[in-house]
Amino acid sequence: MTLVQEKSNQAVEILKEKETDLWLTFVRETSGVRDPALDFILGPGDLTWESALIFTRTGQKIAIVGRYEAEEVSRLGVYDEVIAYDIALSGVLRETLDRLNPQQIVVNFSPNNVHADGLTHAMYLKLCAYLEGTPYAERLVSAETVISSLRGRKTAAETVKIKRAVKITEQIFAATFEYIRVGMTEKEVAAFMHARMTEAAVGFAWPQGSNPAVNSGPDSVVGHAGPTDIKIEPGHLLHFDFGVKFENYCSDIQRMVYVLRPGETDAPAEVKRGFETVRAAVEACRAVLKPGVAGKDADAAARRTVVAAGYPEYMYGTGHQLGRVAHDGGALLGPLWEKYGDQPNQFVEAGNVYTIEPGLAVPGYGYVGLEEDVLVTENGAEYLGKPQRTLVLLKPA
Amino acid sequence: MTLVQEKSNQAVEILKEKETDLWLTFVRETSGVRDPALDFILGPGDLTWESALIFTRTGQKIAIVGRYEAEEVSRLGVYDEVIAYDIALSGVLRETLDRLNPQQIVVNFSPNNVHADGLTHAMYLKLCAYLEGTPYAERLVSAETVISSLRGRKTAAETVKIKRAVKITEQIFAATFEYIRVGMTEKEVAAFMHARMTEAAVGFAWPQGSNPAVNSGPDSVVGHAGPTDIKIEPGHLLHFDFGVKFENYCSDIQRMVYVLRPGETDAPAEVKRGFETVRAAVEACRAVLKPGVAGKDADAAARRTVVAAGYPEYMYGTGHQLGRVAHDGGALLGPLWEKYGDQPNQFVEAGNVYTIEPGLAVPGYGYVGLEEDVLVTENGAEYLGKPQRTLVLLKPA
Repeated sequence: MTLVQEKSNQAVEILKEKETDLWLTFVRETSGVRDPALDFILGPGDLTWESALIFTRTGQKIAIVGRYEAEEVSRLGVYDEVIAYDIALSGVLRETLDRLNPQQIVVNFSPNNVHADGLTHAMYLKLCAYLEGTPYAERLVSAETVISSLRGRKTAAETVKIKRAVKITEQIFAATFEYIRVGMTEKEVAAFMHARMTEAAVGFAWPQGSNPAVNSGPDSVVGHAGPTDIKIEPGHLLHFDFGVKFENYCSDIQRMVYVLRPGETDAPAEVKRGFETVRAAVEACRAVLKPGVAGKDADAAARRTVVAAGYPEYMYGTGHQLGRVAHDGGALLGPLWEKYGDQPNQFVEAGNVYTIEPGLAVPGYGYVGLEEDVLVTENGAEYLGKPQRTLVLLKPA
Repeated sequence: MTLVQEKSNQAVEILKEKETDLWLTFVRETSGVRDPALDFILGPGDLTWESALIFTRTGQKIAIVGRYEAEEVSRLGVYDEVIAYDIALSGVLRETLDRLNPQQIVVNFSPNNVHADGLTHAMYLKLCAYLEGTPYAERLVSAETVISSLRGRKTAAETVKIKRAVKITEQIFAATFEYIRVGMTEKEVAAFMHARMTEAAVGFAWPQGSNPAVNSGPDSVVGHAGPTDIKIEPGHLLHFDFGVKFENYCSDIQRMVYVLRPGETDAPAEVKRGFETVRAAVEACRAVLKPGVAGKDADAAARRTVVAAGYPEYMYGTGHQLGRVAHDGGALLGPLWEKYGDQPNQFVEAGNVYTIEPGLAVPGYGYVGLEEDVLVTENGAEYLGKPQRTLVLLKPA
């Protein structure tokens, strides 16, 4: 069974579970604006003309597409019925809905989950116009929970791909820790990692300008900016944020190195305390990360560990879902800040893959951030790789 | 000057010309749903948090972005002002609009041009909520004409890239015409072309499943379906639709081969007549394609050539703009069919790059489609490559 067939079947199961009659994905010219839901119900291909992809809780799978794309869509082996049209989609869409008579139609808009928000405003207006005068115009509601569950509940095949991405990321980190020397610039280190990615034939989990992020010492700006000409120097905390894409599934991992000063055999006490606090925050979050917990509560577990140790609160969420993109949407392990919408109130589900990534600054040394990737099962959250438990120590030149 | 700087300056010029006070691009987590306008005002990078990118007719360029992305956005050298926020964008957005007091705010939704339709429905609702109680909530209108002109009016640097894409496409066609033999399958031919693309280090103008389209003979389904196991046989019309992406700019070209039957030295009369009709239709369209002509009129010129010769009308538009994607939006050379919205009523502008691609079937032989890429200048439309003027003839094995 292909991934698209597997996820399409899962979509029907989710509609049943959520007692939702019909899910409609309404798109056009998807090389321009691509609804993220298409990855699960169409695959990598694009649709040129206005198209309606329909799933019902009774298991019907219907595609209404432009004549010239009907053959390609049929070949997916997903849709029981592929209806081709030449000039206008609206009539055949209305006829199809009349036949199915759904009481709710969920469509792809969502204030909370960007990956459930692929319906553009103009396409929404167009859909309303097509359904004007029918009972369906007033039955349109958000598909957010359907899509969030579909994206979030990884199938076995999806989890295998993420595990491979994590493994390759760990291998590249190991090679990088062997390679780095005092005096190298952040950019040189990033170039080495890019070369290893090419060898491993993997893509970028987020754009390469800031992937990896490499931050050496207290003057390097942490965030989504890329590596600079700042050199690795003794006394620096060296921070990495790096993720690869293997067969369309991502890893997202942060790692920490301390650069020893002449005479030092270990990191200074304040550096170690910073690292151990972040490590403890990761574990505190992982310990509460189970199906049914709200994202904000898992966030709070890590956040309060950092704050209780006397560090300032980090100004971002503790973790996000991981999947076909690094920030995969759905319930967020974050605080209830406006920019996160309702996502922190949502609940973690079995099959979700999360990052856990608290952080803090150690004045004079640099930034400490760790990021681990975990799979939520009925029994709790398990690491998909090997978490970093101690600082990597780099000897001075 | 970078492409993004060049296009951002062009955006200000277009706002002046169209007497439009302010253009607002409102996005979030653009690795999920990516507003196509970002290619011109941000570049290939992504934004994670809610962000507002603002251009005014008086030349102000302002970005409001999450704290951790401010540095990366500043480095673009596009925005005079980059405002970083931590928790909520809404307040700083309202303050910024108060300072600028625009009478119209154009935002990225458009029923007609998918590439001007990057604002999702939920983001539109969010923007309305943020502006509730201000005078700006009622000043939101479509940015369609601004974005269509920005995308459509290619700068010199953009045209150079498209010309290179066209050149590489022609070279791959030439190699393919040397390579093909009777008995090869459509799939084998496509694989050869993919290998040449890898050598030329170019990407796909549309997904590789149907790029190239290779259709041999009357039984091969023309459209956006991919190559099949159908073999090239004597008496077949062999049709190609193929486009590459060079430095993010596309080509899109169709070419025709006739496979001679034993004893034949030329194609049969009905095949030649089909080819010459399509060739004449291309020229008829090109002859009227000038700044100020409506898309539907350029379409009609080609369409009536085909119909007047006694062939059925082709059920798609004669041509589309070409740019960062193969179907680049804006004024369409097409008929006024519902699926094309208002695009055929829109006007061709100098600097636009169009495809011209009429087609028809020759019963018993296969499909004839030609597609040429042209640049619209003040003096008319000029071919970006070398148009196909005669059928390529393949000898039987």
